[in-house]
Amino acid sequence: MSRRVLQGVLSSARLWGKGRQNAVGLVAVPSQRLTSSLTAPLSCTFITSHAWHNSHPTPAPSPTHHNAAGIRTADAGKEMLEITFADGNSSFFPYCWLRDNCQCPQCFDSDALCRKLTLEDWQHNDCPRSVQVEEGGRHVEVQWVSGHRSCYEAQWLQQHAFTPSARDSQRSFLAIKKELWSTEMELPRMDYNGVMHGDKELLDFLVTLEKKGVVVLTDAPREPEAVLTIINSIGYVKPTHYGTNYPIRSKASASSLAYTDQRLGMHNDLPYFQYVPGIIFLHCITQFEGKGGENDLADGFHVADYLKQFHPTEYRILTDTPVYFWDKGVAQVKQETTEYHKIVNIPIIVEDRLSGDVVRVNNSQLRNSYLDLPPEQVTPWYAALRLFNQTVDQQSIRNKLNSGEMLVMDNTRLMHGRTGYDSALGERHMNQAYLDWDGALSRRRVLQEKLGVTLE
Amino acid sequence: MSRRVLQGVLSSARLWGKGRQNAVGLVAVPSQRLTSSLTAPLSCTFITSHAWHNSHPTPAPSPTHHNAAGIRTADAGKEMLEITFADGNSSFFPYCWLRDNCQCPQCFDSDALCRKLTLEDWQHNDCPRSVQVEEGGRHVEVQWVSGHRSCYEAQWLQQHAFTPSARDSQRSFLAIKKELWSTEMELPRMDYNGVMHGDKELLDFLVTLEKKGVVVLTDAPREPEAVLTIINSIGYVKPTHYGTNYPIRSKASASSLAYTDQRLGMHNDLPYFQYVPGIIFLHCITQFEGKGGENDLADGFHVADYLKQFHPTEYRILTDTPVYFWDKGVAQVKQETTEYHKIVNIPIIVEDRLSGDVVRVNNSQLRNSYLDLPPEQVTPWYAALRLFNQTVDQQSIRNKLNSGEMLVMDNTRLMHGRTGYDSALGERHMNQAYLDWDGALSRRRVLQEKLGVTLE
Repeated sequence: MSRRVLQGVLSSARLWGKGRQNAVGLVAVPSQRLTSSLTAPLSCTFITSHAWHNSHPTPAPSPTHHNAAGIRTADAGKEMLEITFADGNSSFFPYCWLRDNCQCPQCFDSDALCRKLTLEDWQHNDCPRSVQVEEGGRHVEVQWVSGHRSCYEAQWLQQHAFTPSARDSQRSFLAIKKELWSTEMELPRMDYNGVMHGDKELLDFLVTLEKKGVVVLTDAPREPEAVLTIINSIGYVKPTHYGTNYPIRSKASASSLAYTDQRLGMHNDLPYFQYVPGIIFLHCITQFEGKGGENDLADGFHVADYLKQFHPTEYRILTDTPVYFWDKGVAQVKQETTEYHKIVNIPIIVEDRLSGDVVRVNNSQLRNSYLDLPPEQVTPWYAALRLFNQTVDQQSIRNKLNSGEMLVMDNTRLMHGRTGYDSALGERHMNQAYLDWDGALSRRRVLQEKLGVTLE
Repeated sequence: MSRRVLQGVLSSARLWGKGRQNAVGLVAVPSQRLTSSLTAPLSCTFITSHAWHNSHPTPAPSPTHHNAAGIRTADAGKEMLEITFADGNSSFFPYCWLRDNCQCPQCFDSDALCRKLTLEDWQHNDCPRSVQVEEGGRHVEVQWVSGHRSCYEAQWLQQHAFTPSARDSQRSFLAIKKELWSTEMELPRMDYNGVMHGDKELLDFLVTLEKKGVVVLTDAPREPEAVLTIINSIGYVKPTHYGTNYPIRSKASASSLAYTDQRLGMHNDLPYFQYVPGIIFLHCITQFEGKGGENDLADGFHVADYLKQFHPTEYRILTDTPVYFWDKGVAQVKQETTEYHKIVNIPIIVEDRLSGDVVRVNNSQLRNSYLDLPPEQVTPWYAALRLFNQTVDQQSIRNKLNSGEMLVMDNTRLMHGRTGYDSALGERHMNQAYLDWDGALSRRRVLQEKLGVTLE
């Protein structure tokens, strides 16, 4: 069993603790402006749910906090409450949103951090019988026509306001703005052991990876377990039919071109997964000492952005044309599954339907010959794909990993390739594993809250 | 290392085997119709790549096969080759597609089942110097202006044709058509041991799950390992911060409402994952014997379809409005990770950008209070969500699992809930784990090919 903690909820939870049981009758005040100076301090009364535990310490009221998060006025309109905060900013709060997000123990489980209330439990047209600003602006109390009573803390309302700044703040906690790059990019490099053992270093690594899509970790232990150790410190290893982790070295009769010494064109890994592995950890255990075996890297999101700007027709063709990617085979070594046949039909450049943002880029020799298009659309699509690949090549950087280094890449975004080498002249041994972004983003947010770091 | 096998490639591969080394000069025939009756039998000559292994047995020519898959004529046009097959059907094949999909050992690795050719290796405007229908229609040979020579087998061309039927066939291999359902649905039930030990039964289970989104497996062993055993026989268990598998039973101070005896509203699991778990295996180890503890089930895709048809305004609001789902907590038991903070911003009904098909439905008490909307859009959104939930309830079926039964659900599609029960009166113990669709679909395709089953 886990106990969940959220700062906003905690603050609000104070309102529902013991010692606040003095009921005070409220007067109906439709559309009436109430200021903290007009109302007497008032506490809220609720049925204390059996599931409610007043286990969170109640901080002493702080005048600073009070001023920063205070409510100056609360205006009850027809469908919304307009709240003006002490800092002069104001926001409308729709009644149905307020009712749905009542933080009382009957409506919200502060252990599970989960709404207990379902939509059936309240009327869509419920509205306030009265609204009171309490404790000199510390919170606002709503007495609903239906009989329910809700208290909302000033700080919680400010955090959840429908203002551009509050909305931006949550958006940047969801995802950090990506920094697109081209040939001038200097590959970010960090120490593996620092990242493994320092919260600040791990946060820095995860933020850089989210922004740039690539980081090189230096001085990792030269053993296959190193990729698993770091992934397990962040989230879960994502297994595929190639195993939880797998060596990349030259072999005869290889199941993948990766297992040869041939040049690999610019690609991302396993694009034939609906849930493409989010992050690649490619660990160079032994680098080939002769010529070749370098990695080319390009920012697929930058390439998409470039095409959108300078070649809008080709960009549109690449976003509007789904392509079959596939992988099929029979395993012959321990870490692989016995048989697999994976297919997706997805464009080279994938846009989010609502925002239009590029959210995934796919490119691989593992395009299937099947193409679900009218034949007259095929030649223009090839021309666009050719332009995409030329741009990827032109905008790429080249790096040869040292033995012990680990190349970490956003596989939804990065295109990577390898120059050929002659395996007759020496060994080249990489080990690889995957982690999904769900785990990495979760860890980044946990560390941000732990270290109190706000990011744009 | 794995060796990959594909029927279409195998057939084509015969053309590149030993004993077919007799070079024959070809004549330029732009835009000229060539019929099998006009050409002498001809074999193809190629540089035999060191990576090429003639390890596939060459079947003896079959007159039936010849007739069914034969090429009657090949017309070379400006940008495409028009091929008419022996069955009277014809298709255009764009030259760039033909060149990109040359199956010769220089262009294609039949071990890796992967294109070796990159776009840099050929010219976009390459076109045939000559086209010859060979071996009485068994294959067609293209001599390119650039000097390269390609052979395409009739059957391979027919399979990969740009005709509606060939395109439909590949589309249905990718994904089986879903059968939407409402209250009249009879829950599909299959024997756990049959599915575990029979290829046909496993295929039947996977196909039914893909079509209906739900199957009950009966007579599973009443032990927690049962969910892992069946998932591992299909693909990989998907771990989450709740562990690889986890018990669902009533507890004090629960981290999730699931861990109480309270009613659970209709929801899907973990909608706050970008990569939401695809399939839920919910195993009833011990059912509560008193009143309650039943599961309500509804087809979210049917509900979306219903709203689209009868309430298009609300449907559009639900597809166009992203909502924050979240889960945050600190683990206190072994199978959970230490801390997590997962968030996505995603609509209740998710449409594919290109097809407009509904591909995912999300609903949960774990909607965050944050809502990234202008306040005037909030009330209409709540009205639409209310309609969605009412429709889910109205269109649902109720089922109480017996001890030993396993409820398997498509978590991208199904909404499920639980009626409350009184945990003071007895035990209720479920065990749960997840599998992604990437693994399940792969297994279905492998079994289809193994058993020779074609599905619509």
